[in-house]
Amino acid sequence: MRAPAPLADILSPRSVAVVGASDNPDKAGGRPVFYLQRFGFKGAIYPVNPQRPEVQGLRSFASLAALPEVPDVAVIVVADKDVPATVAECAERGVKCAVVISSGFGETGAAGLEIQDRMVAHARARGMRVLGPNSQGLANFATGAVANFSTMFVEVAPQDGPVAIVSQSGSASVVPYARLREKGIGVRYVLASGNDADLTVSELACAVAEDRSVRLILLYLETVKDPRELARAAAIARARGVPIVAIKAGASASGARVAQSHTGALVSEAHVVEAFFRRHGIWQAENLRALSNAAELYLSGRDVRAGRLAVLSNSGALCVLAADTAERLRQPIAELAPATRATLAALLPGFANPRNPVDMTGALLGNSPIFGKVLDAVAADDGADALLISLPVAGKGYDLESFARDSARVARTTGRAVMVSATQATVRAPFHAQGLPCFDDDVDAIAALAQVSRHRALLLHEPPPAPGTIEVPIAPGSGRFLSEAASLAALVPAGLPVIPHRVCRSLAEALAALEWLGAPVAVKACSEHLPHKSEHGLVHLGCRSPEAVHEAYDACMSGLRRLGVDGEVIVAKMAHGRREFVLGAKVDAVFGPVVMVGDGGKYVEALPDVATLLPPFTDNEVVDALGRLRIAPLLAGVRGEPPLDVAAVAQAAVALGRLISSAQDAIQSVDVNPLIVGARGEGAWVVDALVERKA
Amino acid sequence: MRAPAPLADILSPRSVAVVGASDNPDKAGGRPVFYLQRFGFKGAIYPVNPQRPEVQGLRSFASLAALPEVPDVAVIVVADKDVPATVAECAERGVKCAVVISSGFGETGAAGLEIQDRMVAHARARGMRVLGPNSQGLANFATGAVANFSTMFVEVAPQDGPVAIVSQSGSASVVPYARLREKGIGVRYVLASGNDADLTVSELACAVAEDRSVRLILLYLETVKDPRELARAAAIARARGVPIVAIKAGASASGARVAQSHTGALVSEAHVVEAFFRRHGIWQAENLRALSNAAELYLSGRDVRAGRLAVLSNSGALCVLAADTAERLRQPIAELAPATRATLAALLPGFANPRNPVDMTGALLGNSPIFGKVLDAVAADDGADALLISLPVAGKGYDLESFARDSARVARTTGRAVMVSATQATVRAPFHAQGLPCFDDDVDAIAALAQVSRHRALLLHEPPPAPGTIEVPIAPGSGRFLSEAASLAALVPAGLPVIPHRVCRSLAEALAALEWLGAPVAVKACSEHLPHKSEHGLVHLGCRSPEAVHEAYDACMSGLRRLGVDGEVIVAKMAHGRREFVLGAKVDAVFGPVVMVGDGGKYVEALPDVATLLPPFTDNEVVDALGRLRIAPLLAGVRGEPPLDVAAVAQAAVALGRLISSAQDAIQSVDVNPLIVGARGEGAWVVDALVERKA
Repeated sequence: MRAPAPLADILSPRSVAVVGASDNPDKAGGRPVFYLQRFGFKGAIYPVNPQRPEVQGLRSFASLAALPEVPDVAVIVVADKDVPATVAECAERGVKCAVVISSGFGETGAAGLEIQDRMVAHARARGMRVLGPNSQGLANFATGAVANFSTMFVEVAPQDGPVAIVSQSGSASVVPYARLREKGIGVRYVLASGNDADLTVSELACAVAEDRSVRLILLYLETVKDPRELARAAAIARARGVPIVAIKAGASASGARVAQSHTGALVSEAHVVEAFFRRHGIWQAENLRALSNAAELYLSGRDVRAGRLAVLSNSGALCVLAADTAERLRQPIAELAPATRATLAALLPGFANPRNPVDMTGALLGNSPIFGKVLDAVAADDGADALLISLPVAGKGYDLESFARDSARVARTTGRAVMVSATQATVRAPFHAQGLPCFDDDVDAIAALAQVSRHRALLLHEPPPAPGTIEVPIAPGSGRFLSEAASLAALVPAGLPVIPHRVCRSLAEALAALEWLGAPVAVKACSEHLPHKSEHGLVHLGCRSPEAVHEAYDACMSGLRRLGVDGEVIVAKMAHGRREFVLGAKVDAVFGPVVMVGDGGKYVEALPDVATLLPPFTDNEVVDALGRLRIAPLLAGVRGEPPLDVAAVAQAAVALGRLISSAQDAIQSVDVNPLIVGARGEGAWVVDALVERKA
Repeated sequence: MRAPAPLADILSPRSVAVVGASDNPDKAGGRPVFYLQRFGFKGAIYPVNPQRPEVQGLRSFASLAALPEVPDVAVIVVADKDVPATVAECAERGVKCAVVISSGFGETGAAGLEIQDRMVAHARARGMRVLGPNSQGLANFATGAVANFSTMFVEVAPQDGPVAIVSQSGSASVVPYARLREKGIGVRYVLASGNDADLTVSELACAVAEDRSVRLILLYLETVKDPRELARAAAIARARGVPIVAIKAGASASGARVAQSHTGALVSEAHVVEAFFRRHGIWQAENLRALSNAAELYLSGRDVRAGRLAVLSNSGALCVLAADTAERLRQPIAELAPATRATLAALLPGFANPRNPVDMTGALLGNSPIFGKVLDAVAADDGADALLISLPVAGKGYDLESFARDSARVARTTGRAVMVSATQATVRAPFHAQGLPCFDDDVDAIAALAQVSRHRALLLHEPPPAPGTIEVPIAPGSGRFLSEAASLAALVPAGLPVIPHRVCRSLAEALAALEWLGAPVAVKACSEHLPHKSEHGLVHLGCRSPEAVHEAYDACMSGLRRLGVDGEVIVAKMAHGRREFVLGAKVDAVFGPVVMVGDGGKYVEALPDVATLLPPFTDNEVVDALGRLRIAPLLAGVRGEPPLDVAAVAQAAVALGRLISSAQDAIQSVDVNPLIVGARGEGAWVVDALVERKA
């Protein structure tokens, strides 16, 4: 069997056949032939069309068999019923990759999917890769290998450059292409994987990340079938310092499914994807505009550090609005040093105490030299990580050329990120010519800075090494859930802080447990058939005397009998904490182990306030995640309360991550609810747990 | 004394003098002369400049005294020290309005403010109005009266149209101007009030609202000094069906000030402004882009009803993303009727069960007639209020002209709002030519629809008539706060549901109160010197026996003695409710009475979840406001809990609104914390209150 060709060869083919080639360059079968010629593809182009001797000025061939050589890539644009045979023939002949533009397969339903699966399996068995079906094709503007039918390349002229776009959808690949080109940014790859039947966005992302000319990768995904491959792409890109920005579309469609566990109810696919992206340093964009908004700033190569923003504007209103926007986006505003402010005060008379944002006022009209001086003063301040020059209005009367030269000089000599925002394209032009990131709106500029500085923080944060696996004792049985006692027992070896308790099979044992644990205790019925026992009134808290334990024990046993289930009784120490948290884990079918931690209490599902993490993660990552919760202000203590033991919560979450990772073949989910958390130094206690076996 | 001229005359002057006129059209003193000539002002233009016989081809006059007539408007562009005398001379001579472009007054500090105040008072006493100082000027593109120095009118050609822009800031007036012009929308007024020393944004908004050609008003405000005038502008505009969209900048600067009352701490200036805008049907925009984003949709005059959105796209990815965006913006997606879906299924073969968003697929390339048919089918569905045609990619191979004609026909014949979104300007062009609102991004289009449909709902919601005032009994005294007993007594006549209680001056009275109220009771020390008594341990809850009341009474009295304050004891019935709310009111220095209502509990300030309303308002408005809280899901009851008595909360809030409105001269604030709320039908109880006297 032939080994599949490296993707680099497929993305830079030496020859391309177009099966179903059309003489009309505006048809799907005509466009690739047109583009390959137009964009200077140096390799051989073989139109295959038995009806014509020539296609768009090139000799046309009657069949694949008639070609003078086996093409590296064959673009398939034939009727859907003819696709499988054509793909099969390509595979037999040794084509490296079939780019299947034709549609009517997996996207139409189960029947189409079956045909598609068979077609791909046949190809793979013969060492051929498939892009598509239902793909817009691939485009490599470095070599002119544009085996793609998008209308966009007719409308918006390409130019090779440092960006790679990989998308399941054709249109979601060319919209960012057009936006980047509009900003003058060159794009090397525009790859659309269609139905992702063989070559996926993730695998293609690996390939483009390995191209040393690529400095920014944009992805559009609707499904992630192969998270390991995507993680590999992220690792390659991270190692090369190449940021990846991605859209995961379809969050609204996924919804929360009916789930027995809190974790299941609280952790949607969207949350898992978000945690996955964060884990792997991929920045998640909300929409197509956001996907490319920060491209210029990324490509400027400046280190934006913490992103502390200094704004210089000739408009006081834009200064006020920039501060509002920064606050809304939680982006820090640079605090200027007293010396800087003194310098500015001398430069901007009438303003005794200049602050950031720096209002250069209308004085700039007719007094252009002031611009460079103000800029120098601010850029010299170590408190400012990035500068935004906001010129909402300028033109006649302003020496924009000198402003732009000064700005470029400051960017070059100080290494600062210098961004420019202007409503008018004519005002942006000279700054753009100097290579500075330009925006038509302050909000976009500040959002770009916020993104790049936070993305930088994500990327600095390498995933910890996976810890060794641990033994997780799972009680034998066949029910969906472990009993509470068995669930708690499963958590102990992982290091979760399980509340001291005794499993009692007689009243004598229960009374002995009270003695051993000390009052007060909780007395609870326990059975694997009762995953949600509190609904049945089988929980008795705060038992302080042998009599109370006796009464509670009897109530539990008669309750179990009434419900007709086997069971025993747990006598547990009462935990005294300051707040209930919820902690949980599940094994996602696609992404694997996931941990969830957040605010607990009775409204945990009605008013969710939880964070999702993918193991392995560190204590610090849990602390960061808790800091993003709504209840974050309470963690440090408010109204004279002591701070909560956040470290204990973090340790418990890390331990649960290790547990679920170790036991992912045996366990489907773990719920810890509540995790009772004390003041700092007091710890946290698992007082109830529910382990769900893997089906 | 001369009466001031109507603003309509000032905005359409018959003659304009420019004092400090420059021959250089790129200086502040040259621009107005240049613009008045360039934009076809038909009235007399009088440059005043003693140094020159001519200014920009016009005869120049040595002084105001030398003019052949008194000009309607005098633009003042002289050195700051000369401004007061010049303005005074204008006033003496009978100029209707001085447009003071010169700066160096209120914006520089207290000394400048004093000069400014005196200058304006002098002018007003003589019947002259002042725009500015520090104003960019006024511009009326209907008459060419452009007494303004903005660079933007050189750069972006004006055209008269249906939009009026009124702004404190010059740049914040011309940025939306430029964005509107870029979309081909005409602008009639661009007015910048600078320091708002006399003519304010609010008053100017009234004037433009009265111009029958104006169909959309955009405002930029940093301070609102005269909310009544702004409310009047809103009322005029509402009556004429003219939407007002406004930015209130500086939210980040205002911050929360240290406040003794919850209401003070929880209700910032930003919240009051938001409530004011909502109350008066003004849509609040977050930033300059949002200010003009929906302009085309407003001006299309379509009724977007509830804004249920149907999306038609040639891209499946854009369909998915549009659904994501709609969900994120909480904009409803139209549910298509089975008949519509059947029609679509016939039109779009291969998709057995088409849904909204409607994916027309790449089939549109080369099959243009399908577009109109799909459009007709969707527009005929009464479930769809507005249509978005999203064409992320198109061009060669697409009959865009016919798409645009079909779209315009559907908009015309069905009355539906039809919006278009396309990345490429060339794709938007034919739709724009047909007068359809066009956007370069789906997110902007959906945001515009969300805005217009919600703004419509706000405008349909007329403020209720102000109810008559009521008597509010305020105990005599001079302290800042009323005692709890006096505070509760002040609430009763307004109809607030105060918990039954007795104020006791002896143990016998306390024991009698227990008898009368029935156990359990709360026993609390009460003194006007102890506004926050719970901190002193002077609250004893759940007293069930005479002995317990005795003990609590003694503890309260000895506590009062220990603190050295006079006081008495309140014995109150214990309220049994399901959740604690917080309710409060204050008199804002600018906006007047304000009511706040929301979730209560110990973290009311650390994790605020409250809504702000301006009285008068109805029960329904409170219910709507509660529905926007984070705890909204709890109101209807979750986890088997009964719904809360939202109606009782609403009645209490309306009553408090009536109270604060009636007593705003005597009361500064009222805190009700907690308001204990029962299940539906059980009511709500004020168990503690604190009334703050007006200083």
